[in-house]
Amino acid sequence: MSATPAPTDPLASMRHLLAIEGMPREQAIALLDKADGYVEHSRAATKKTDRLAGRTVVNLFFESSTRTRTSFELAAQRLGADVINMEVAWSSIKKGETLIDTAMTLNAMHPDALVVRAPDSGAVKLLSEKVNCAVLNGGDGAHEHPTQALLDALTIRRRKGELRGLRVAICGDIAHSRVARSNIHLLNILGAEVRVIAPPTLLPPGIESLGVEAFTDMREGLQGCDIVMMLRLQTERMQGHYIPSIREYFRFYGLDHAKLASAKPDALIMHPGPMNRGVEIDTVVADDIDRSVIREQVEMGVAVRMAVLEVLAGRAAEETA
Amino acid sequence: MSATPAPTDPLASMRHLLAIEGMPREQAIALLDKADGYVEHSRAATKKTDRLAGRTVVNLFFESSTRTRTSFELAAQRLGADVINMEVAWSSIKKGETLIDTAMTLNAMHPDALVVRAPDSGAVKLLSEKVNCAVLNGGDGAHEHPTQALLDALTIRRRKGELRGLRVAICGDIAHSRVARSNIHLLNILGAEVRVIAPPTLLPPGIESLGVEAFTDMREGLQGCDIVMMLRLQTERMQGHYIPSIREYFRFYGLDHAKLASAKPDALIMHPGPMNRGVEIDTVVADDIDRSVIREQVEMGVAVRMAVLEVLAGRAAEETA
Amino acid sequence: MSATPAPTDPLASMRHLLAIEGMPREQAIALLDKADGYVEHSRAATKKTDRLAGRTVVNLFFESSTRTRTSFELAAQRLGADVINMEVAWSSIKKGETLIDTAMTLNAMHPDALVVRAPDSGAVKLLSEKVNCAVLNGGDGAHEHPTQALLDALTIRRRKGELRGLRVAICGDIAHSRVARSNIHLLNILGAEVRVIAPPTLLPPGIESLGVEAFTDMREGLQGCDIVMMLRLQTERMQGHYIPSIREYFRFYGLDHAKLASAKPDALIMHPGPMNRGVEIDTVVADDIDRSVIREQVEMGVAVRMAVLEVLAGRAAEETA
Repeated sequence: MSATPAPTDPLASMRHLLAIEGMPREQAIALLDKADGYVEHSRAATKKTDRLAGRTVVNLFFESSTRTRTSFELAAQRLGADVINMEVAWSSIKKGETLIDTAMTLNAMHPDALVVRAPDSGAVKLLSEKVNCAVLNGGDGAHEHPTQALLDALTIRRRKGELRGLRVAICGDIAHSRVARSNIHLLNILGAEVRVIAPPTLLPPGIESLGVEAFTDMREGLQGCDIVMMLRLQTERMQGHYIPSIREYFRFYGLDHAKLASAKPDALIMHPGPMNRGVEIDTVVADDIDRSVIREQVEMGVAVRMAVLEVLAGRAAEETA
Repeated sequence: MSATPAPTDPLASMRHLLAIEGMPREQAIALLDKADGYVEHSRAATKKTDRLAGRTVVNLFFESSTRTRTSFELAAQRLGADVINMEVAWSSIKKGETLIDTAMTLNAMHPDALVVRAPDSGAVKLLSEKVNCAVLNGGDGAHEHPTQALLDALTIRRRKGELRGLRVAICGDIAHSRVARSNIHLLNILGAEVRVIAPPTLLPPGIESLGVEAFTDMREGLQGCDIVMMLRLQTERMQGHYIPSIREYFRFYGLDHAKLASAKPDALIMHPGPMNRGVEIDTVVADDIDRSVIREQVEMGVAVRMAVLEVLAGRAAEETA
Repeated sequence: MSATPAPTDPLASMRHLLAIEGMPREQAIALLDKADGYVEHSRAATKKTDRLAGRTVVNLFFESSTRTRTSFELAAQRLGADVINMEVAWSSIKKGETLIDTAMTLNAMHPDALVVRAPDSGAVKLLSEKVNCAVLNGGDGAHEHPTQALLDALTIRRRKGELRGLRVAICGDIAHSRVARSNIHLLNILGAEVRVIAPPTLLPPGIESLGVEAFTDMREGLQGCDIVMMLRLQTERMQGHYIPSIREYFRFYGLDHAKLASAKPDALIMHPGPMNRGVEIDTVVADDIDRSVIREQVEMGVAVRMAVLEVLAGRAAEETA
């Protein structure tokens, strides 16, 4: 009411969540702390607060994604917000002005937050410049998927205590993966040592400039790792690239117990889902009760999205109030 | 709070609603009693309670069904729950593990109840074994559709007072009908005399073992019936079977006033919808003001689903609280 | 409670909103007044009231329309109602009885209001005769789109003070436009002078009988106009008609600054969206900061739909209470 946010609140300056790249370390930690506070919330009988009561969150998805859309929808509902789902075929968007028309039309209906997924890398940022509500990047092309990196970091932090000093391998289709890109940035921000492991054709040249060490051999790359993050093989994004045979891919890059033996004995196994079992990950490894945290990642997803929505959709409300 | 449920509460042991087969008679009656109490609720101006406030109900539909999905969605909303709709193409499910991955992913988001419709008969039960929330079968293949049988029984009971001793004919595509199967079980549990009437090709061999008398002639089968339940002719499920011509089917098995004359004069006409008018039912019979209770069945559907959701999604909440 | 609505309340007799044609002037003004009161509501931090708490609004769309569906959904949510979205392929409706079966099924679930969009002109009215809840026409064929006309009138009234005496040109595909038809009626009711401008092939014969002056030349028709309403060129509705080439259409009927110079210098530019930029409207004109009110139209849409839903879904509730 009368008090302004403390000048040291690292979340006070957040207006959108477009990317992890460039996020101040204190902001990332503050988001993880807030998300951590929401984990128990979804485990309780009554999962709902009224922190965003009377606010509107719109899921604007230009790509189908039942899993991410549902996670954001649940997060918004559990904060008491109303949610509108809009799935729009990207093919109906004639780029540029029409994307902006869609955004401006929604903006005129006064949402408090827009969660946007789009197949083009720059689309979400462009859109955020045209509207006056908060924009959350729900995944844009091969660019970033910031809430995925935050939920991965929260999962690791709750298991390992701290990210600083951990050795993390991100394995698979690095070239097409916004999940890889957001994770590389966030892990670096939080002080982890990041490796990427991929076949040469799926390893973008110059990837080392993002602060990673690159490997093309799984056993070598996994050496001494605390965390093994597998990526989904996204054949749908591979037009014009060499598409590996699944059998061959699994043999060299699929995570099985033999390859996993190179990592530390207590290494965590992660996957953003949905998994291609038998392609990038062996089914026995995926279901490893002690080390696979794949279900926890999903659970942390709701908590992270509640934290981000609370900050961004709540912020807008305070300012207009 | 301090009191545990009375040991005689027949609903206390319910965790899921997967099938009618094997349901104790007292449990079926308790569900119908509870549903009966919700009928007036939807007729009132304010249709909402807060019994499931803060709870999450997910409609996970692997087959399209606007009608059933809407009925469950309304029921959940009127109990104050938040609802998530997920329509997933069955073709995208590579059976077994991937179905389970979908379920486990949802489970990690802590829903209180999953309503599942699937084209395969065993899918819903399999899924219920993997999650720790309540699972409601919204129709699985040719197996069961338990809430349909409950709403049919509620409709009959409100019109006829009791089911015990009534003679009920279920007519049409018995072979492919989960509605028929659930109704056969429930009507037997509640003490009705059950007949099935179908062309020989749509009458599964050994159907008598479920406790029915089978007929292939409508006039003979309808003799003295109190209730005439017509089934939708589901040509979409008839691959590899003899597909009757519609004209021929209507002539021999479509319910018209001539055939209906064999039943009791006050026999009720029922249909689970959507109707193929002029195929399995004559339009005049479908709209018979005195005897057709087809609209009441829809109304009872919301009440039955409120009762089941209250028991199952509320139960989960009490236990975790 | 004990008091009946004052006999002079022009909204007391409204049961449905099917068309603008024949609407009493006092009723139109009362709706606009009520909508005006909701404009600030959506601009506030907390956008929600409980005026329709516990009520159910169903969006029954036989044609896709993300924009209109979203506007109605937001309006209902902000009044505290629960919303069910149903998109049904028109091709699955075998006209007549099956449309009615769909309506009667929904009706049995006791919604308080049905918002219906359908590709056939008479469908919404037919449906309203079969159900006992309020029906709102969300656009039916080439017939009417009443909330669009109301939101256009509200936009104009807030900018110009009054509609009486204004000269309004509606330009483009008059023949296929329910937006044109509803606007012609409402503008006449409210005392504006209405012109239509279209190529001869898109100008229905006898259009003058609706109370408009018809033009086939843009510069001539726009002479002295206060308001220029452009219509979307709906090639999808033009089967069997002459489909103009886009280049030719823009040259003669697309709104650019050269043609706009014929209108008054402070003329407002309107478009119901979605725009075909470069077809019926030049992109510079569409984005004219001073004169284009296209975004305001969208904003007014939510306010108008809140007003109509409050009157119709609230009315039903009072009566059944």
